[in-house]
Amino acid sequence: MDNVSNTVRVELGTRSYDILIGRSILSDLGRYFKDLFPHSRAVIITDQTVAGLHLDTAESSLHEAGVDYSVVIMAPGEKSKSYQGLIKACDAVLDSKMERGDIVIALGGGVIGDLAGFVAGVIRRGMRFIQVPTTLLSQVDSSVGGKTGINTGHGKNLVGLFNQPHLVLADTAVLDTLKPRDFKAGYGEVAKYGLINQPDFFEWLENNWQGIFEGGPEREEAIARSCQAKADVVAADEHEANQRALLNLGHTFGHALEGMAEYDAERIVHGEGVAIGMVLAHEFSARLGLCDLAVTDRVVAHLQQVGLPTHIRDIPGQLPKVELLMDYIAQDKKVSRGSLTFILTRGLGQSFVKKDVEPDLIRAFLEEKLV
Amino acid sequence: MDNVSNTVRVELGTRSYDILIGRSILSDLGRYFKDLFPHSRAVIITDQTVAGLHLDTAESSLHEAGVDYSVVIMAPGEKSKSYQGLIKACDAVLDSKMERGDIVIALGGGVIGDLAGFVAGVIRRGMRFIQVPTTLLSQVDSSVGGKTGINTGHGKNLVGLFNQPHLVLADTAVLDTLKPRDFKAGYGEVAKYGLINQPDFFEWLENNWQGIFEGGPEREEAIARSCQAKADVVAADEHEANQRALLNLGHTFGHALEGMAEYDAERIVHGEGVAIGMVLAHEFSARLGLCDLAVTDRVVAHLQQVGLPTHIRDIPGQLPKVELLMDYIAQDKKVSRGSLTFILTRGLGQSFVKKDVEPDLIRAFLEEKLV
Repeated sequence: MDNVSNTVRVELGTRSYDILIGRSILSDLGRYFKDLFPHSRAVIITDQTVAGLHLDTAESSLHEAGVDYSVVIMAPGEKSKSYQGLIKACDAVLDSKMERGDIVIALGGGVIGDLAGFVAGVIRRGMRFIQVPTTLLSQVDSSVGGKTGINTGHGKNLVGLFNQPHLVLADTAVLDTLKPRDFKAGYGEVAKYGLINQPDFFEWLENNWQGIFEGGPEREEAIARSCQAKADVVAADEHEANQRALLNLGHTFGHALEGMAEYDAERIVHGEGVAIGMVLAHEFSARLGLCDLAVTDRVVAHLQQVGLPTHIRDIPGQLPKVELLMDYIAQDKKVSRGSLTFILTRGLGQSFVKKDVEPDLIRAFLEEKLV
Repeated sequence: MDNVSNTVRVELGTRSYDILIGRSILSDLGRYFKDLFPHSRAVIITDQTVAGLHLDTAESSLHEAGVDYSVVIMAPGEKSKSYQGLIKACDAVLDSKMERGDIVIALGGGVIGDLAGFVAGVIRRGMRFIQVPTTLLSQVDSSVGGKTGINTGHGKNLVGLFNQPHLVLADTAVLDTLKPRDFKAGYGEVAKYGLINQPDFFEWLENNWQGIFEGGPEREEAIARSCQAKADVVAADEHEANQRALLNLGHTFGHALEGMAEYDAERIVHGEGVAIGMVLAHEFSARLGLCDLAVTDRVVAHLQQVGLPTHIRDIPGQLPKVELLMDYIAQDKKVSRGSLTFILTRGLGQSFVKKDVEPDLIRAFLEEKLV
């Protein structure tokens, strides 16, 4: 159990938990499980893609530790994060005769984490769960904070729960199996933590990003610092009454771009939308005179350096009409009573929540971007 | 707002709430709403039957108080407490453009309360909700304790949440519209609180039940004492780790009887199953030498007096095979690791949790009851 190089404690009173970060710690899953839950059974919820890559390791580890377990395998991709996916997963967990004291293990990326965390929260009014995030995005984002849920015809993540895991195992070696594009997209969220309120972390990323991509020790450090940054925000504001909204830096623009592309992953994935969205948030802040344009240039330079898109034009396919983007922006659940709320910035790592942003200013700004 | 005759406070720390009890307080719904949530909109979730009887009163009250609201009407009956009912209700609430700060009002009996409380808990990861229970059963049982959920093919209430309402309005005049059989069934749960741990309340019921049925001031008092009894247990053990199980007195037998009748309300409804189940729990306790048979006689006498069934033979239709009942008992979610747990009693109002009950003893006992 000495492969853990970093531990981040998420402080939430009686619901506090640890995020363990290290290379190849998936093979210690069974031992961690047995330590925490000596008398419980487990049900692994995963998807076909992740099952092909990592399920053997997880199963062997549980088996060696003497943990009795079942496996539920979902179809890969966002479509499992739906009412039908919820029903399928709930019925499969009930089929496996799990009792309320048993444990759900979410083995996969953000979709599986969001779905399995929701399922755990509602089976027999609440089973406990462990997250084993297998993408960079889920390791630094969705494994911290307890947001779970599914999409509906009305939008993303509109049905779900705040439900905290009991343990997160972030195996950084697993990330070597990601497609480069998915790794880069996850990196967009890593950079976000620097841009929210940690300029020193952003500067460290500018100097150390290659080690993160290549799997050096910088990778564990970057993940740990990202998780700690998110944990600090979440601990202060678990249910997003206020400061937690800062985590949405780049997300209102980003969600609109994902929406206009109809969530077609060929055109744009979430982390790419966030990258472009963060640039837009900086540019719009500069436009309002809040932030120096040189800061935007620095952000763009770093995101381009790692290979992320930074401009709406970088999205393949036709440019959207501005009204389509405005519709998505208005639908975003961060809208309150018709007024627009954005995360803007006063400088590098100086983000803040700006309420009552005038829609016409956003429209005019976006129109220029769409030329 | 002076129609409230009794208030029961459910103490759950920051999630504490009041149960207001009184004749015709439904017409004050809007004023209570506005007091608690001056800037919120409401979405009423109800069913066709209750809508026909009480929706006008609720709507007029909200309208007069200046509350903006929508209405979602479900099909009546247990079938709405299902995956499909959940999807329908969630989509309808999302259609109504409710935001996270808006409020769900559950107007109906136990089915609507369980469904609407679940829906409130998952829309945008949690809206607040008010319960307006319209049956005696839901006023004294499901409106206290925060259990919400739906049934699946695997059994009842297997998918759901612990989710506490922000206010409960128990209008006792509404109960005048119940069918006598449904009122009696709810009374089974009232009697249960006496039998759990309040022999003085049971004695009071023996002397005052007519006033409760006729709508005298005894009705509000009985509901208040029942809610207080449940609130005390729930406050001590919100998530049913231990003492909350006492509330299941009569329920393991009762659920098995409901199950063998395939939940056919023509044959048996929940409160009737609980009545027969409580008698069985007393008889079985006497059989084990735990409790005097005279106590059972007294329980049977009172339940018969109000018109409740007290014996398996009172259920119309064919008597079940003992193995069918044993299967349902083993499936009951109060089973832990294969051993049977029952709520038994040492005397009038002296119930306790008995673990590791030998299945053969139960089987032999039930066989005699099925002759």
